[in-house]
Amino acid sequence: MEPKIFLLANELGRYLKSRSWKIAVAESCTGGGICQAITEVPGSSAWFDRGFITYSNQAKMDMLGVNAETLKNFGAVSEQTALEMAEGALQHSDADIAIAVTGIAGPGGGTVQKPVGTVFIGRSLKEGECRVEVNRFSGDRTGVRRATVRRALELAIIV
Amino acid sequence: MEPKIFLLANELGRYLKSRSWKIAVAESCTGGGICQAITEVPGSSAWFDRGFITYSNQAKMDMLGVNAETLKNFGAVSEQTALEMAEGALQHSDADIAIAVTGIAGPGGGTVQKPVGTVFIGRSLKEGECRVEVNRFSGDRTGVRRATVRRALELAIIV
Repeated sequence: MEPKIFLLANELGRYLKSRSWKIAVAESCTGGGICQAITEVPGSSAWFDRGFITYSNQAKMDMLGVNAETLKNFGAVSEQTALEMAEGALQHSDADIAIAVTGIAGPGGGTVQKPVGTVFIGRSLKEGECRVEVNRFSGDRTGVRRATVRRALELAIIV
Repeated sequence: MEPKIFLLANELGRYLKSRSWKIAVAESCTGGGICQAITEVPGSSAWFDRGFITYSNQAKMDMLGVNAETLKNFGAVSEQTALEMAEGALQHSDADIAIAVTGIAGPGGGTVQKPVGTVFIGRSLKEGECRVEVNRFSGDRTGVRRATVRRALELAIIV
């Protein structure tokens, strides 16, 4: 694991532990990388609740309750889907905060409007706040996935 | 990612693609590492359906239908739980094969009967076969998790 990612995962763990918060994660393009980073930290069962690796559209609907209309109208890689994934992760878990990512890691799947490296990251808090940001990461598949993991961990640390 | 793990993930991808099979994965101690390895391969959406990162007991019950009695009588790290996780992953997905892992990555959590490094890996096929193996891996937390990812990928390649 990239040292920077492990450092961030440790920082996130300290942050969540200090608030007695639990986190849930919904991942599409990173395919488990965020969950893996969080759980690499010893003792992470105290703050990591569960993860949903929803690669297919059907999985996004089944596991997170993402609406079929949202996927049809906006696509799986969209602000709306990222938001519904984060909200769904919160609702289908015991977590206080949920992070969700959906994007195009490449090498295929890019379009003019959403080129490879386009990644939406959603964050929902049990106390009500939600947010989605869009990133355009550079690099190959591995690079885009790593950048997404880094940014998702950062976003989960609410300073 | 360890080169050996990436090679195995590629081999698994070729195998699943050749059979037009999809895979689902349920992970406890590896926390997403198996899903991440499988999806590191370009085009893996053709054979990777979804993943369940069930770190807590509640998540194992909610997401996979593991019985409360099983967890109570045998523990989360047991042959019975690994089997129910694999069966549950198959039933709660569109996959043809499911792999499930539950174990003690350490540094805490080990006992005399189940020391750190004890990992159960279950495999269920839609066509009916199921199997659980127990491993005793050596090494630290990172080492145990890596060894588990490697072995889980190997077990998913049915030669």
